[in-house]
Amino acid sequence: MGSLDDVAARLVDGTIEVIDLTAPLHADTPILALPEPFGQTEPFRLHEISRYDERGPAWYWNNITTGEHTGTHFDAPVHWVTGQDGDDVATVPPSRLVGPAVVLDVTDRVAEDPDFLLEVDDVHAWEAEHGPLPARGWLLYRTGWDARGEDPAAFANADDDGPHTPGISVACARYLAEETELLGLGVETVGTDAGAAAGFDPPFPCHGFLLGAGRYGLTQLRNLGRLPARGAVVVAAPLPIVGGSGSPARVLALVERTS
Amino acid sequence: MGSLDDVAARLVDGTIEVIDLTAPLHADTPILALPEPFGQTEPFRLHEISRYDERGPAWYWNNITTGEHTGTHFDAPVHWVTGQDGDDVATVPPSRLVGPAVVLDVTDRVAEDPDFLLEVDDVHAWEAEHGPLPARGWLLYRTGWDARGEDPAAFANADDDGPHTPGISVACARYLAEETELLGLGVETVGTDAGAAAGFDPPFPCHGFLLGAGRYGLTQLRNLGRLPARGAVVVAAPLPIVGGSGSPARVLALVERTS
Ligand SMILES: [Mn+2]
Ligand SMILES: [Mn+2]
Repeated sequence: MGSLDDVAARLVDGTIEVIDLTAPLHADTPILALPEPFGQTEPFRLHEISRYDERGPAWYWNNITTGEHTGTHFDAPVHWVTGQDGDDVATVPPSRLVGPAVVLDVTDRVAEDPDFLLEVDDVHAWEAEHGPLPARGWLLYRTGWDARGEDPAAFANADDDGPHTPGISVACARYLAEETELLGLGVETVGTDAGAAAGFDPPFPCHGFLLGAGRYGLTQLRNLGRLPARGAVVVAAPLPIVGGSGSPARVLALVERTS
Repeated sequence: MGSLDDVAARLVDGTIEVIDLTAPLHADTPILALPEPFGQTEPFRLHEISRYDERGPAWYWNNITTGEHTGTHFDAPVHWVTGQDGDDVATVPPSRLVGPAVVLDVTDRVAEDPDFLLEVDDVHAWEAEHGPLPARGWLLYRTGWDARGEDPAAFANADDDGPHTPGISVACARYLAEETELLGLGVETVGTDAGAAAGFDPPFPCHGFLLGAGRYGLTQLRNLGRLPARGAVVVAAPLPIVGGSGSPARVLALVERTS
């Protein structure tokens, strides 16, 4: 019956494994760069307070500068104007931070086309093979983009036309928001929308439709290739910033060990 | 057998409940204040980037200033000189971020004496009633101090002699580090050590012994009174700051719903 005592025992004996879906945070963690005149998010930076020295003889610690949307992070509904009456990152119910997750893998198609956009038919084809998208769960969209995560230029993949990174079509974003009961969408790229999504009609459809429908976003995920297509339980753990639009987040997956 | 499919179903039907052990983060979140000439941690602050305006017409977001040890946070072994060869907050194995937790409640005794210190005999008395401390699990030390969490002066509870907040005796801190297999110690106060611990011999024994033994600290926890004495599974989710001594953390507990 899935008692927590059993889960605790299986965590200790290793038959339930914890997989870290979070990108490490450091000064070179890729961040979104917007065109002028828009405001910009800060990169992640540490400012040393003391390191076993006269500023603190027995202790080492740092202060931090970052953005809410820096590194692996959680988008709350209020991040977008369509969700402005919805939850901020501190009012998202804790029950919605832990749930089942499925992985839809299009790595092969993105390798051929970095501007690849997921369509509704792709979702239906995945469901025909793996069953329905989970109610109150995450769709994790695997594109292989996490392999670029330590190379900001390759991660942004921009040319004179702007960034070329994979995403979701306008119709599919609307479908996920309006026709499913997902908690939200998790991606490997810098944001939930495709690199070209500023030019879509409407622009930034994942942000507009999903956050407007009270769903969440998770970005810059790693290690999705280590998850089964279905069966993982994901803990998405943003900081509870009062009034915050999002937060850097630790994202952990529990999976049945198969080997 | 505690399968993850069962856990996912029980999260969805609500028979497993998610309890948030994290204090909300805002500009008045209490922080540690050290005497001169030591370096100081920053309070938590937001700096607005845009809010559906000319700086970002469809989006709201903020930059953040904080300390690694601000609000509910995770102490990694390298935070203390005794643990300087141990894990930083990014190298703590993910398997050690999810585990069983027990709650030892001394609220009544702290109400009579804010300088109350837990002794080894108190731990043994608790074990006689509730069973052994969990291997690879957390000891969560409930003192009632979380009721002061939105009042920084009451939370610090300082007079001319310094802060008066509850903690753990030198002998008990050594016992927990050397004679148990705990992941670490979680508290409701600003740090794992008592307010008077700068004057102990050795000073700051929870930091020195526990971090020196590769264990962790969790601070400023809330809602421990909603957990059973044993049976919760706790997810401690610090940000994976490369080289970091700790991190603000989201801390969530899974519990069997009893009502
Ligand atoms: Mn974002
Ligand atoms: Mn600390």
